[in-house]
Amino acid sequence: MAVYTDVAAEELAEFLKGYDIGELLSYKGIAEGVENSNFLMHTSQGAFILTLYEKRVAVDDLPYFLSLMAHLAGRGVRCPQPARNRKGQVYSTLAGRPAAIINFLEGMWPRRPNAAHCAGVGDALAKMHLAGQDFPLVRNNPLSVAGWRPLFDLAAGRADSVQAGLRDAIARELEHLEKHWPLDLPVGVIHADLFPDNVFFLGDKLSGLIDFPFACNDILAYDVAICLNAWCFEPDHSFNVTKARALLNAYGRARKLSQSEQDALPLLARGAALRFLLTRLVDFLNVPAGALVKPKDPLEYARKLRFQQGVKSLRDYGIAPPGCVV
Amino acid sequence: MAVYTDVAAEELAEFLKGYDIGELLSYKGIAEGVENSNFLMHTSQGAFILTLYEKRVAVDDLPYFLSLMAHLAGRGVRCPQPARNRKGQVYSTLAGRPAAIINFLEGMWPRRPNAAHCAGVGDALAKMHLAGQDFPLVRNNPLSVAGWRPLFDLAAGRADSVQAGLRDAIARELEHLEKHWPLDLPVGVIHADLFPDNVFFLGDKLSGLIDFPFACNDILAYDVAICLNAWCFEPDHSFNVTKARALLNAYGRARKLSQSEQDALPLLARGAALRFLLTRLVDFLNVPAGALVKPKDPLEYARKLRFQQGVKSLRDYGIAPPGCVV
Repeated sequence: MAVYTDVAAEELAEFLKGYDIGELLSYKGIAEGVENSNFLMHTSQGAFILTLYEKRVAVDDLPYFLSLMAHLAGRGVRCPQPARNRKGQVYSTLAGRPAAIINFLEGMWPRRPNAAHCAGVGDALAKMHLAGQDFPLVRNNPLSVAGWRPLFDLAAGRADSVQAGLRDAIARELEHLEKHWPLDLPVGVIHADLFPDNVFFLGDKLSGLIDFPFACNDILAYDVAICLNAWCFEPDHSFNVTKARALLNAYGRARKLSQSEQDALPLLARGAALRFLLTRLVDFLNVPAGALVKPKDPLEYARKLRFQQGVKSLRDYGIAPPGCVV
Repeated sequence: MAVYTDVAAEELAEFLKGYDIGELLSYKGIAEGVENSNFLMHTSQGAFILTLYEKRVAVDDLPYFLSLMAHLAGRGVRCPQPARNRKGQVYSTLAGRPAAIINFLEGMWPRRPNAAHCAGVGDALAKMHLAGQDFPLVRNNPLSVAGWRPLFDLAAGRADSVQAGLRDAIARELEHLEKHWPLDLPVGVIHADLFPDNVFFLGDKLSGLIDFPFACNDILAYDVAICLNAWCFEPDHSFNVTKARALLNAYGRARKLSQSEQDALPLLARGAALRFLLTRLVDFLNVPAGALVKPKDPLEYARKLRFQQGVKSLRDYGIAPPGCVV
């Protein structure tokens, strides 16, 4: 939610001479992304997003997710496509920082997602999983089960200051998940952060998936579980089975979930809830004084975790029992 | 440099039904304006800026400057034009705030203005002054000579903490300006804040003047003086007479400065320097702890003031002596 680096018009115009995307007409710093500087550019050939990667982003991961977007866009997934400069590079240096340009996708993210949006995201997620199957690069998920205990260690000492008993609740859940985390489910490229603000719609029609810096190789059904948590709860914290059904059925029509994936879904959803509970908790406990950006509420995910702990079968997600077509 | 208010896509799409500017395709909060929330919108009819006015903006002044932009744009000045809704209003309410839509102007503000940019701004400023002559609304300038002493009173006690002797220097200058401020120069609509970041160019060609919230009725030549200070100093604080000549000559070709305006210009430039010195000083002394926005340097304008105090005639601005065509 901040532009950290300004770029002079003269410097940017010069940079764009290395690309074949037209003459620069305008650019505005946009209030998106907490860690990077993003600009919406208009050129004589259209609209683009310019991103300058600030220091917290590992430059080593840029080839993975920029190539991934190119790969997915080439297979019909509606996602931004990185522009290549005349040297064929998807990123180079501007204002002393790694910089990349992607095409701008029209669309708005739904502040109040409905069942049609959930169906859209289920369908797009499945198609993204299929399109990613022959993507050659590999990036392990630093925020999968092995990454949770280090986060817990950072937050444990002060967790109870956020909610009494939170520390023990997390410790118990972590132990359970470490013990039971599935090792034999289909893996592939996952988005890993497909929240509503990363999915654009025009009306009820999905127009794009954005924001791939968490993309990695992990259990495909774990990505579905992240979406169940992110899309199917109401503002009053209740779980909306109609939305879950829409999401899972749309996913299943494009990529059928196997029996073991279906069986694992409640456990994966617990893991997905714990992962966001932990990162939010760490952020919440480390907000710099005077920060303008309000940290996201970790307790939202503590509640979601409790819901997922109570899920016994896919019936609780509003869909047909195992054995039937999901 | 911040978006204070988020607007839901659904709410914005509904709001736009009151306008005839097409279907909403996207909108992004942009990092411009410290006091308002600004969004760059794409619709099926083009690009627009949506502004939500936050509490520090006096709603009473909105009709003045929105009508002014409409008036000026109607007379060929390249400035944003407010969109009228189906009720004919140039602003109404969105997300509980006064909200207006203007068309988006392509162009970039020059981070390193050259003489051609200065000529462009001189020409555009003169044409704006001419186009404003039959604008019927009146708004006094709260930041003209009568407004400076109250600002000084706010800052005086701590001025010397910024630079030793600053308090006395300002007090002396203020007394001088209050005594000698001209009362008989041509007045009209002035922009009053025409800094480089409010003037867009495509290459060396001026494509638009933006940001009119300081616009008011005041001495026309005072607007020229503000621009001399804002455009003609180099980063090393030296005054660039080539740029000043380009600015003043271009202005004079479109609207000839009278003999008394020419004579008053050095004094007006002292006033213009003091005005920005004072507002920056007050801001500088009142930065909230942890603010992300770095306050502008008041001492830049203390230096400019000292330069203007030494100006004896228009020769010091690089142009012909009084009597010749400027």
